[in-house]
Amino acid sequence: MQLLLSTWAEAEAYLKTSKGIILPIGSTEQHGPNGLIGTDALCAEVIARGVGDATGAMVGPTIPVGMAVHHMEFAGSMTLKPSTLIALLRDYVLSLSEHGFQRFFFVNGHGGNIASVRAAFYEIYAENRALRGKDAPDLRCTLVNWWENAEVSRLSKELFGNKEGSHATPSEVSVTQYAFPDSIKTTAMEPETAAAGGFYDARDFRRRHPDGRIGSAPGLARPEHGQRLVEAAVGAISRQYESFLGEA
Amino acid sequence: MQLLLSTWAEAEAYLKTSKGIILPIGSTEQHGPNGLIGTDALCAEVIARGVGDATGAMVGPTIPVGMAVHHMEFAGSMTLKPSTLIALLRDYVLSLSEHGFQRFFFVNGHGGNIASVRAAFYEIYAENRALRGKDAPDLRCTLVNWWENAEVSRLSKELFGNKEGSHATPSEVSVTQYAFPDSIKTTAMEPETAAAGGFYDARDFRRRHPDGRIGSAPGLARPEHGQRLVEAAVGAISRQYESFLGEA
Amino acid sequence: MQLLLSTWAEAEAYLKTSKGIILPIGSTEQHGPNGLIGTDALCAEVIARGVGDATGAMVGPTIPVGMAVHHMEFAGSMTLKPSTLIALLRDYVLSLSEHGFQRFFFVNGHGGNIASVRAAFYEIYAENRALRGKDAPDLRCTLVNWWENAEVSRLSKELFGNKEGSHATPSEVSVTQYAFPDSIKTTAMEPETAAAGGFYDARDFRRRHPDGRIGSAPGLARPEHGQRLVEAAVGAISRQYESFLGEA
Amino acid sequence: MQLLLSTWAEAEAYLKTSKGIILPIGSTEQHGPNGLIGTDALCAEVIARGVGDATGAMVGPTIPVGMAVHHMEFAGSMTLKPSTLIALLRDYVLSLSEHGFQRFFFVNGHGGNIASVRAAFYEIYAENRALRGKDAPDLRCTLVNWWENAEVSRLSKELFGNKEGSHATPSEVSVTQYAFPDSIKTTAMEPETAAAGGFYDARDFRRRHPDGRIGSAPGLARPEHGQRLVEAAVGAISRQYESFLGEA
Amino acid sequence: MQLLLSTWAEAEAYLKTSKGIILPIGSTEQHGPNGLIGTDALCAEVIARGVGDATGAMVGPTIPVGMAVHHMEFAGSMTLKPSTLIALLRDYVLSLSEHGFQRFFFVNGHGGNIASVRAAFYEIYAENRALRGKDAPDLRCTLVNWWENAEVSRLSKELFGNKEGSHATPSEVSVTQYAFPDSIKTTAMEPETAAAGGFYDARDFRRRHPDGRIGSAPGLARPEHGQRLVEAAVGAISRQYESFLGEA
Amino acid sequence: MQLLLSTWAEAEAYLKTSKGIILPIGSTEQHGPNGLIGTDALCAEVIARGVGDATGAMVGPTIPVGMAVHHMEFAGSMTLKPSTLIALLRDYVLSLSEHGFQRFFFVNGHGGNIASVRAAFYEIYAENRALRGKDAPDLRCTLVNWWENAEVSRLSKELFGNKEGSHATPSEVSVTQYAFPDSIKTTAMEPETAAAGGFYDARDFRRRHPDGRIGSAPGLARPEHGQRLVEAAVGAISRQYESFLGEA
Repeated sequence: MQLLLSTWAEAEAYLKTSKGIILPIGSTEQHGPNGLIGTDALCAEVIARGVGDATGAMVGPTIPVGMAVHHMEFAGSMTLKPSTLIALLRDYVLSLSEHGFQRFFFVNGHGGNIASVRAAFYEIYAENRALRGKDAPDLRCTLVNWWENAEVSRLSKELFGNKEGSHATPSEVSVTQYAFPDSIKTTAMEPETAAAGGFYDARDFRRRHPDGRIGSAPGLARPEHGQRLVEAAVGAISRQYESFLGEA
Repeated sequence: MQLLLSTWAEAEAYLKTSKGIILPIGSTEQHGPNGLIGTDALCAEVIARGVGDATGAMVGPTIPVGMAVHHMEFAGSMTLKPSTLIALLRDYVLSLSEHGFQRFFFVNGHGGNIASVRAAFYEIYAENRALRGKDAPDLRCTLVNWWENAEVSRLSKELFGNKEGSHATPSEVSVTQYAFPDSIKTTAMEPETAAAGGFYDARDFRRRHPDGRIGSAPGLARPEHGQRLVEAAVGAISRQYESFLGEA
Repeated sequence: MQLLLSTWAEAEAYLKTSKGIILPIGSTEQHGPNGLIGTDALCAEVIARGVGDATGAMVGPTIPVGMAVHHMEFAGSMTLKPSTLIALLRDYVLSLSEHGFQRFFFVNGHGGNIASVRAAFYEIYAENRALRGKDAPDLRCTLVNWWENAEVSRLSKELFGNKEGSHATPSEVSVTQYAFPDSIKTTAMEPETAAAGGFYDARDFRRRHPDGRIGSAPGLARPEHGQRLVEAAVGAISRQYESFLGEA
Repeated sequence: MQLLLSTWAEAEAYLKTSKGIILPIGSTEQHGPNGLIGTDALCAEVIARGVGDATGAMVGPTIPVGMAVHHMEFAGSMTLKPSTLIALLRDYVLSLSEHGFQRFFFVNGHGGNIASVRAAFYEIYAENRALRGKDAPDLRCTLVNWWENAEVSRLSKELFGNKEGSHATPSEVSVTQYAFPDSIKTTAMEPETAAAGGFYDARDFRRRHPDGRIGSAPGLARPEHGQRLVEAAVGAISRQYESFLGEA
Repeated sequence: MQLLLSTWAEAEAYLKTSKGIILPIGSTEQHGPNGLIGTDALCAEVIARGVGDATGAMVGPTIPVGMAVHHMEFAGSMTLKPSTLIALLRDYVLSLSEHGFQRFFFVNGHGGNIASVRAAFYEIYAENRALRGKDAPDLRCTLVNWWENAEVSRLSKELFGNKEGSHATPSEVSVTQYAFPDSIKTTAMEPETAAAGGFYDARDFRRRHPDGRIGSAPGLARPEHGQRLVEAAVGAISRQYESFLGEA
Repeated sequence: MQLLLSTWAEAEAYLKTSKGIILPIGSTEQHGPNGLIGTDALCAEVIARGVGDATGAMVGPTIPVGMAVHHMEFAGSMTLKPSTLIALLRDYVLSLSEHGFQRFFFVNGHGGNIASVRAAFYEIYAENRALRGKDAPDLRCTLVNWWENAEVSRLSKELFGNKEGSHATPSEVSVTQYAFPDSIKTTAMEPETAAAGGFYDARDFRRRHPDGRIGSAPGLARPEHGQRLVEAAVGAISRQYESFLGEA
């Protein structure tokens, strides 16, 4: 059930059955030679909607632009400053909580968001406590990265072994190829598998990872792999969501 | 050309041909008994993409949640505070400007965004000037409301006459019915045409407009009307975009 | 009744009779060759005080500096960033609301303020709701531009026809000539009527409108015209104020 | 020379002769039984303009609302939060500095502003340094309280002895009686001289100082005393201003 | 070499030999029945200073209060909101960078800080880029948790096995017992090993972990264990610091 | 009693006996040729702890970095922007107030902090009032500078006469020599007593006071003087603290 495709009366009815909502969060940033700039947003969205379909959960609008300061030397990358992303998440959660939502389950497509999102959770808890005092609702926020579960890890390893890497991975590119088959890009890459390694700021990232990939061979991406990855992710994350709702 | 569906190399190539980008902005808020909560975001997105197709312009990610403080008494509505929306827009435009984008054309789906977006433009100009001094790029931002042009006005009037109203209008509902035919809602409404009139804050809005509509009869919405409206809007706004790029 | 010229006991007594307050807001920015930098603040103040005299309303202190980022290439112009202006307005309204003021009627002298002021209204409503919950007072804010009413429009047209323009207009210059007869400037202008047209940021404004005027012939300003304009504005806006207070 | 009553060309000409500007800052807050709510703003303004006349300095718009959190239990008092006042002052000074102003001389009417204004000076210096780097102009800000100079102290003592007190003083009330003779209030006060003493927040202030005065006997105020005080202040502060401009 | 115990001339001399600085960051929050409220700050400080002694690195002042929103139901806990901590870290790093420091090595004592600190790094990179443009220095920030290295992990396991837990651990309590032998607390705890498990906000934390411990048996803490843990941590982290400085 | 060396149960017990807490605040900034960069933090800490010992008061963690924008031309100086320091203090006081602390006694080591700290007090009072309404606890904050009391003034004068100066004073250097005897620096200074005088921003400070001292002869500092100064300060400030707690 998508919030954007519901009426307010449907949202009101849903809230009588559940206090949970799934919020996809991605990024708009370079993903190497054949990865889409929207990869992280698109992956989070397709998987979150799958989880919504599987569990009956409400799925909110996707946050398309996240924290991508380190990608800013590559054309087309967009970023919120961490402080802006925190403010945005605070407004999202606190406004939804006015209607009775209390369980906020973020499905994340971008490792670079994790710190800011987790920081935001505590900004939210602090505001909820400060503004609402003893009557504050019991808000709970959690973040799952779509690729961090046993099912997806196993499948990524099976499909791509040590060529998965950590940015512009064949797994995430496969997911977008499956979901957006009209936007599959075929680009020669040299070397097939990019160098791995960390980075600091945007200039440092570009210097170390000149075509944008980190440790990955996204030329191996295939839409049929993407389909399997989506299915694995939806299955695993649906169980995580149910478990989250069921916590005491 | 959608930014989310492009690679960074494609974005870089695009920037050699144009400094313009289209940014759809909507809202996630109640739209009356049969209107989707995502109406404003969905309308802005479908029309902006149409303009992108017609003009070859790059279309960035849709801003799904806008300024909807006054809708917060209806379940499912989300809002950014104006100050958060301004910060978000500043980050969007300034990060895109790092790559060379200089013409920012917002296609807006929600009247409630206008003030914050226009305020943001001056926040952006001030920051651009403060941070970059004499070398500041010549940034230009503009906002068009998809329904504010002669073609769409004429067609809305032809289709709905004085039952168009100003919120949860049959025009915008028609557009979403056309674009999302699986999400057409059929809801009885009483009276057919809601009372018109202004409002102040969220409680006042609910008091005056108890089912969320303002002056409108969205029961008249039809997907085929939506198609015509989209075509009219795309035509008119494509010309506005070309004109914006062509300004001295 | 001016707040600055009242004692706190008088303010307390006033609040037993009315919850309304008029707040003039202007700008400190260039107004062409013969317009005063304070034009917008001075016009808003003189007219707001006239409305206060006519209606018995409390008139608060004038906000002299507004949002004038686009005028910063002309000496003497001052500006608040939109985000600062929003913070200021939030503090003004929320502090007055602690005493029981609930109807905030801004008399505006500067088109450039409109977006930030309207954005501020929703920032205020959001804060009022967040901080005060179910007990929040019913705050209502509105903005009127002194020149946007039938009486003033008609008179401006009668006096100046299509030489009124949109910045540094003969109407506003006339008002300041009437109110500050010792500060009438006589400056040759070439051409008599400046070119019309829009603008983006400060550099763009200066490039398009090199002497600061937009579409206007302020050489036609006369103090006696100013007197008539003030009278027309006071009459029209007094009715708007009464109507605002009388709303259900 | 008042900025509000000048044209931009006059401001530009002035800047060829001086980099200095005087900025009056007051407060809108209760001033006891017979003191005007605008006392601090009005005193600062009349004296600052006198200094401008005496020295030929440019005088900017008065900041009418300052930091008066502790007065909020008295009707009609308005306040900016310290953080808002700091943002406002930063915008004032940085925008004026774009035109070449470099010496900012604040004439203050309210003790409660001092901390926030001095904090703002360092916020400004930090921003100037951060934004403009090695080319940053040499900005200098100073604050003078109109009553803190030998001439005014001597005269206050001569006129009111130990009945001057520290808030709603006969001196400041006299100044407003002189400047606004139509707004002289005659109110019985019991006791003639209020109790002295400190305070913490607004509730504490009201508890300790129930009619708003601190240690003062403002019933002794007379317009003719006000005239002498203004003259003394203008003389002393004019010398301070000249000295400020003349510093190496 | 401690910054607080150096003169500015010594700091200047140091900067000719190294661009690195170590910044301890802790928290002021409950640490169970026998743990000190300052545990995280004290551990970070003692270990960071040990690393400074071992490597000759400059060690800056300890950040004593971190992000502890979730501990606020226990007396004496203090917290910065994440947004405040980010602002603080931005100011720390950017002000140190003005002198030439470029490598910022945070030794962290509190898991709850990680998200906000990592978010801050990108806020800093973004500001450095925005403010300083092409001439921005190559700033690099990293965070190490003193307990997350092979040496400390091995020793904790050897000493406490599965009674280490994750908050108010016997390891951290041992470190403070070693460093502050006069402040060793002996408190009966029931059960010896607290229940493990996650938490959301402060109320939820207290509900799940009523005496403040998570999965730990801090009654096992001993000063002599603390000594060994400090030595292990200093050794491991000194190598991490050297490696950080040595990165290309 | 140090908060960092207490358990939460001890803090809870303390709160049954007192609502007071002492918070040392210093700065990390140049202190001339032989003064430690940490002078202000170290002096505030040693004296605050002495007061805690003498009165039984709880002493919180020292704020080591304050407002030192004007020292940024000297290596090793760190600063918070005033707005950041205000946010930090707000979080400190409001989080402590959640446990029942209501009397906040800041022992300050740095004149440059005064304005920001005092501004913060009103930011805190405003937030307390806004967030907590009629139930807001009666928070009281005060600041004492350790050198501003009759005992210390008298002793400084006796020891150093007119060579005390106002920055990098022999008194404060003596205190750190007493407290940190291993960090006594012996540096030739020319002239013995530095020139006095004010300053504006960081560049101006360095230009006027090239070795960092203002009007002082810190070569006269001796640890035995420091001991006497600490004793004098502890005695005087302990009485101030008791008096603060005892106020009606």
